[in-house]
Amino acid sequence: MAAEIVNPRSEGTTDHTGHEGGAEPLDSFDPAFALHRGGKMAVQATVPVRDKDDLSLAYTPGVAKVCSAIAEQPDLVHDYTWKSSVVAVVTDGTAVLGLGDIGPEASLPVMEGKAILFKQFGGVDAVPIALNCTDVDEIVETVVRLAPSFGGVNLEDISAPRCFEIERKLQERLDIPVFHDDQHGTAVVTLAALRNAARLSQRSLGELRAVISGAGAAGVAIARMLVEAGIGDVAVADRKGVVSADRDDLTAVKQELAGFTNKAGISGSLEAALDGADVFIGVSGGTVSEAAVSSMAEGAFVFAMANPNPEVHPEVAHKYASVVATGRSDFPNQINNVLAFPGIFAGALQVRASRITEGMKLAAAEALASVVGDDLAADYVIPSPFDERVAPAVTAAVAAAARAEGVARR
Amino acid sequence: MAAEIVNPRSEGTTDHTGHEGGAEPLDSFDPAFALHRGGKMAVQATVPVRDKDDLSLAYTPGVAKVCSAIAEQPDLVHDYTWKSSVVAVVTDGTAVLGLGDIGPEASLPVMEGKAILFKQFGGVDAVPIALNCTDVDEIVETVVRLAPSFGGVNLEDISAPRCFEIERKLQERLDIPVFHDDQHGTAVVTLAALRNAARLSQRSLGELRAVISGAGAAGVAIARMLVEAGIGDVAVADRKGVVSADRDDLTAVKQELAGFTNKAGISGSLEAALDGADVFIGVSGGTVSEAAVSSMAEGAFVFAMANPNPEVHPEVAHKYASVVATGRSDFPNQINNVLAFPGIFAGALQVRASRITEGMKLAAAEALASVVGDDLAADYVIPSPFDERVAPAVTAAVAAAARAEGVARR
Repeated sequence: MAAEIVNPRSEGTTDHTGHEGGAEPLDSFDPAFALHRGGKMAVQATVPVRDKDDLSLAYTPGVAKVCSAIAEQPDLVHDYTWKSSVVAVVTDGTAVLGLGDIGPEASLPVMEGKAILFKQFGGVDAVPIALNCTDVDEIVETVVRLAPSFGGVNLEDISAPRCFEIERKLQERLDIPVFHDDQHGTAVVTLAALRNAARLSQRSLGELRAVISGAGAAGVAIARMLVEAGIGDVAVADRKGVVSADRDDLTAVKQELAGFTNKAGISGSLEAALDGADVFIGVSGGTVSEAAVSSMAEGAFVFAMANPNPEVHPEVAHKYASVVATGRSDFPNQINNVLAFPGIFAGALQVRASRITEGMKLAAAEALASVVGDDLAADYVIPSPFDERVAPAVTAAVAAAARAEGVARR
Repeated sequence: MAAEIVNPRSEGTTDHTGHEGGAEPLDSFDPAFALHRGGKMAVQATVPVRDKDDLSLAYTPGVAKVCSAIAEQPDLVHDYTWKSSVVAVVTDGTAVLGLGDIGPEASLPVMEGKAILFKQFGGVDAVPIALNCTDVDEIVETVVRLAPSFGGVNLEDISAPRCFEIERKLQERLDIPVFHDDQHGTAVVTLAALRNAARLSQRSLGELRAVISGAGAAGVAIARMLVEAGIGDVAVADRKGVVSADRDDLTAVKQELAGFTNKAGISGSLEAALDGADVFIGVSGGTVSEAAVSSMAEGAFVFAMANPNPEVHPEVAHKYASVVATGRSDFPNQINNVLAFPGIFAGALQVRASRITEGMKLAAAEALASVVGDDLAADYVIPSPFDERVAPAVTAAVAAAARAEGVARR
């Protein structure tokens, strides 16, 4: 086949025109650049196109019968196209990693990374869609228009509070799963780790008081999910302190947050809230003093998930806490979204779920927690992303929950 | 890896929930359905994700450096993502094959087919984007918004005359190639076949008078390209007869057409126009009588490209014409767009062309014609899609033309 000869990517390291890309120095400067040259993904045919007989089945005239059948019976699109196995990874590039608003093009390496993790861990095809618009309604309209091609939508790295409204509006308008991973993926993995930490110390979630640092996408979703799961109490702090009903500077989302969190009625600083708390969950990128950590309750859990710099160094946290987790791969207990999103979408797509419900997310967290099983230990409350049991367990649990909740379509 | 276990596609033929898809009977009814089950394409990672070291390069934290570099130097997006090798195959499902307006979902099998032909023949990654909007400006806005993710846009199966306006507006707003294949792909391959037919009969294009049946996307583009290439004269007929300035029922596009075609000032029916004509090009789906074909000039060329039923049967045409071509693979001289679009985009992407110019299309046609070389014969004026020389020849010619025309960016 001609593919090898003319693949434009194969031209990536040669330059016939004296283009001043200055790329080579970057490649030798850092292995991450060398790895990224030409991108990290490709499309492949899953059917043969060797001769004109193949062509007459996969393309005209054979394809016309398949098109006509779908036109008559729309559900067949799930059987005879890749729709039911492909997810759009949609971003506007406004909140990329810790880098902030770097725009759609610069966000593409993250979206491609996400896409290959979908494939590697969940067997789900995924396509980066980086949009050059940031208006809520423009993003919503655009995604609604391109939705016929996809079985699901993974929203990614869209800044708060727009991310909440975009997700809600898309969920209202589409009958395929729409899932903002920065919110729900993080929440699922955090809950799984917390369940296991509680089991290790023989406590129930209902006995625990948690404090979350950060009221962005992840913080809000974690708070919501911990309440769903039956946490005793949870307070969320933003840069100005604990979110509470007596504050007059709250956005709509934070007002809502104030309504279902902070039963203890704490007001004041994050560090004050940590006094006597059982759980610290950091998704802020800020820092927490050793003094504040030391003021937490006996046997506390510290999940310092800011990346690359945890809110408190794990070694310091270990002096006071019984379980310590981070977002980093070079410490034990890495809270990593890749443990959740591939299996969540694989499960939802498998049963053609119309949406991803709270029950499906809770089931994902339980399945993820259960993989740890009898090996549970202070440095092993959450499995490794490379544990091959993870994605199948999450997939099966999510598919079963979708059926139980009546959102499965097969 | 877990991918094999949880790939939702692997579940395609089992049904746990008694879903009444009714799909199995179709699969055994026709091999085209069996082939299409689960779709025809997938995404694959081109970098390893075997362990946490791989993960830390392809995803966080390594990916952040690549994102930052692109944010600082936007051109690097072409070096370090798949943007420069991926094309969006965009449709609204309004003019799918000969099936007409069947909607975006039902068009997906064709778009997937197109995508795998891009890959197979051009080494170009392609992603189906079927839109559920048909308004010109909505389509344009949508494609502009998602353009950051793609190196080019192939418009497909969008009905005329909207297709002309959509393409023009997108070309004005985007700095990547936008190419409506139903227009230009068809025109390039037709011109290549015509060049070789003329060479076989030792005539120049300037000596020939052509008649095109069909004033839709393909007919208009072929007329334009033949004029660019120096045809003696060309008349285009729609259902009401030859497009000429004296008609008062012309759309804007046909008025323009009347301005640069039909120098002979023919008015009346298609069949009347064929009297004494040297070339017939059928892209209408209609029929032409044997009497009309017999009235053409000595040694005429008949390209009866309607699919699946040529405007005149090749056996009948051969009684009067020196060269006969069709759109079908089971007759000699198949005029098939797959001879053009993979190489055209591969060449444009290779040099990061900002657009696809007339010169690039003419170069593609010449390169395609030249593949036939000394083997030229009445039943071999155009090569087979499976001739491995085709895509590299077109790619190289298009890349060179892009440089010559100053639209190459490397």
